[in-house]
Amino acid sequence: MAAGLERATRRDSANVEAVKRLTGAEPVLVDVQPLQQAMPGFDRSTVLTSGAPLAWDEYRGGQRAGIIGGAIFEGLAQDEADAEAKLAAGEIRVRPCGDYSCVGSLAGIYTASMPVLVVENHSGGNRACCNLFEGVSRHRLNYGVYNEDVGRNLRFLHDVIGPVLGETVRTLGGVPLLPIMKRALHMGDELHSRNTAATLLFTRELIEPLMQLQPRMPTQVKQTLDYLRSSDYFFLRLSMAASRSAADAAHGIQSSSVVTGMVFNCRDFAIRVSGLGDRWFRGPLPTMFGAKLFEGFTEADVEFMGGESTFNETAGLGGFAQAAAFPLQEYQGGSPEKMVEANLAMYRITLGEHPELKIPYLGFRGLPSGIEIHRVVETGITPIMDIGVAGKAGGQIGAGSFRAPIECFRSAVAAYAEADI
Amino acid sequence: MAAGLERATRRDSANVEAVKRLTGAEPVLVDVQPLQQAMPGFDRSTVLTSGAPLAWDEYRGGQRAGIIGGAIFEGLAQDEADAEAKLAAGEIRVRPCGDYSCVGSLAGIYTASMPVLVVENHSGGNRACCNLFEGVSRHRLNYGVYNEDVGRNLRFLHDVIGPVLGETVRTLGGVPLLPIMKRALHMGDELHSRNTAATLLFTRELIEPLMQLQPRMPTQVKQTLDYLRSSDYFFLRLSMAASRSAADAAHGIQSSSVVTGMVFNCRDFAIRVSGLGDRWFRGPLPTMFGAKLFEGFTEADVEFMGGESTFNETAGLGGFAQAAAFPLQEYQGGSPEKMVEANLAMYRITLGEHPELKIPYLGFRGLPSGIEIHRVVETGITPIMDIGVAGKAGGQIGAGSFRAPIECFRSAVAAYAEADI
Repeated sequence: MAAGLERATRRDSANVEAVKRLTGAEPVLVDVQPLQQAMPGFDRSTVLTSGAPLAWDEYRGGQRAGIIGGAIFEGLAQDEADAEAKLAAGEIRVRPCGDYSCVGSLAGIYTASMPVLVVENHSGGNRACCNLFEGVSRHRLNYGVYNEDVGRNLRFLHDVIGPVLGETVRTLGGVPLLPIMKRALHMGDELHSRNTAATLLFTRELIEPLMQLQPRMPTQVKQTLDYLRSSDYFFLRLSMAASRSAADAAHGIQSSSVVTGMVFNCRDFAIRVSGLGDRWFRGPLPTMFGAKLFEGFTEADVEFMGGESTFNETAGLGGFAQAAAFPLQEYQGGSPEKMVEANLAMYRITLGEHPELKIPYLGFRGLPSGIEIHRVVETGITPIMDIGVAGKAGGQIGAGSFRAPIECFRSAVAAYAEADI
Repeated sequence: MAAGLERATRRDSANVEAVKRLTGAEPVLVDVQPLQQAMPGFDRSTVLTSGAPLAWDEYRGGQRAGIIGGAIFEGLAQDEADAEAKLAAGEIRVRPCGDYSCVGSLAGIYTASMPVLVVENHSGGNRACCNLFEGVSRHRLNYGVYNEDVGRNLRFLHDVIGPVLGETVRTLGGVPLLPIMKRALHMGDELHSRNTAATLLFTRELIEPLMQLQPRMPTQVKQTLDYLRSSDYFFLRLSMAASRSAADAAHGIQSSSVVTGMVFNCRDFAIRVSGLGDRWFRGPLPTMFGAKLFEGFTEADVEFMGGESTFNETAGLGGFAQAAAFPLQEYQGGSPEKMVEANLAMYRITLGEHPELKIPYLGFRGLPSGIEIHRVVETGITPIMDIGVAGKAGGQIGAGSFRAPIECFRSAVAAYAEADI
């Protein structure tokens, strides 16, 4: 009994600390540079991808196609057959994004030369990176498609967008992201499936350095403005890096039962827990809570090809902030009533409320933050996540809200009970 | 009986047409230029001010001070005493803003040299103008204050902001406002007391022409960007001109009982009705529905010094769109529940729903548009208006929601019953 109480006290204190670190993150975009420069230890023959690690022969569908596409784009292989052979032989390594503090959007393919947004969490002293939004085409490498157009677009990001953004961000001495995220939540964004306001606010920060750069690089500056203008989702990659940096800072606290990561690959969903080391607790893929598919597609066309943007929900955004983003109905379906109800349910499985990031409709209540594994298992309420939906033929076919599976939370609770904490 | 039916049919048809013109407006910002250029017939010795006309000796408080300040700013008088004398003698004329298709913010002071935003309603073929937001200082001419700082700021608008905006708008060949307003309503604006998103979206439209202008006028371009950046309310003047242009287009339809203008001066609130000519139906000043005053101020400090931004409510914005703008709680108080309830009530006194401008929280229902005088009198529900609150000592002291008085609607209903329609 006394031991049980002591254990509970240790857990409570550890969780207070975890929530404090999670909600106390101060993410600042400090640079945009190729992954191999941002992560000097990065081995050029590596391809990163979303989710808990799998053996190469377990990757399938769009995620497998994305990894192969990344290898070809990077010049690690000449064609698909060559890539398949080298991947099977281990000449090309596949690693989870998290091994290099990256966070994957959908398939989450990273190779050495790709420009990444480098976000520093000033309060945690750690960094996280995310690569760039590929634009509005339905076909993108992160949706498991690689062809001539996709390759040309990736080179454009490498040659133009990355360098211009890098220079402007360095000129500014960094761009603090929290003030932008705070305002965006008051402007219809939940910062996962809607980033319209945040992208605009971020663009405004860049105007002056872009003007300074213009005489030297007029074409590239114009191309960058066009890219930012056409990409209402640009900021998603920044909110992802910010969320990963916050979650990483909250990870590794002895005795804490707070979730510090939710990811999926093409086969399973997985969570990690602050006090339970680097183990991923796996469960089945998420289930549809409500989605809106592009015309001509049905639920049978949906394919899971990975995703780590659910770090945003880990940090209280997206499905945990739907009541900030009623316009999402247009993009992913649902109704305001259902969004409010789903959002309120997330307070039942979290321990804290974000002191800075707030939801106007809920009377400026702070975002529900710090998912606690026992609360999930006891209530049977699992996290709701706003994600882009990929199709079996590759490409995006819609967007929707999905529920995390309860199995991984049950496994985590069991492991927690057995752990020496 | 048959005559009564015929009359009702004529009214219904006329009102359908009025709502069509009101909600079918296509406002485009076509230029920014001094009032005397925008309105060639404008007599230089005239000062415009908000509300139904009053005799000079009836103007009082901040509105009177504003008129005098405008006269001094324009060089029509040397000092207050000189201005008082010339105004009393009729050497300086005071006219309502509407005489020159202008729309007044608070006291609504216009003089010949002031730059105005020229908005053309492409569907109606008419124009409306609004002068520029004076910036974030609590003391501004439109809040009844004229001093050295206010004068310097007005000259800055005249020398820098007006010319730079004018050139960029002409370079663009005009800026369509409806697409911006549509998006802004999905981003937390109700386009009266909250214009944050619209101002950002408008700023984005100007980036490229500002870049083109930069080599020639680097300082002025930077000052304009700073001005736009510091002014979350910049767009209010554009939504006001857009609303006035829509309301003017809907005015003058024989037999229509739709409200085409709501304004107030320092003494009374007034409405005009599409089918009842240019007569203003006057009633007492609005009553407070809910407001948030800056620290240190109470309701006893509130002074009415005029306002025509309520053309926005006439067109379905502001108090008619509160459910689009929950963040307004911070600025003007209230609760989400009360905002939704107030917004829904406005559908009971209007005849139409805007086909383009919609409210996400209400399942993308169109804005309630086309206030009908009989509906107001029968339900006892009067329009709710989001307005800035002026103080007795001059300057802004807060913001809030106010209710229009029922008396002017009753007078209009009586006049309508007697009219030969």
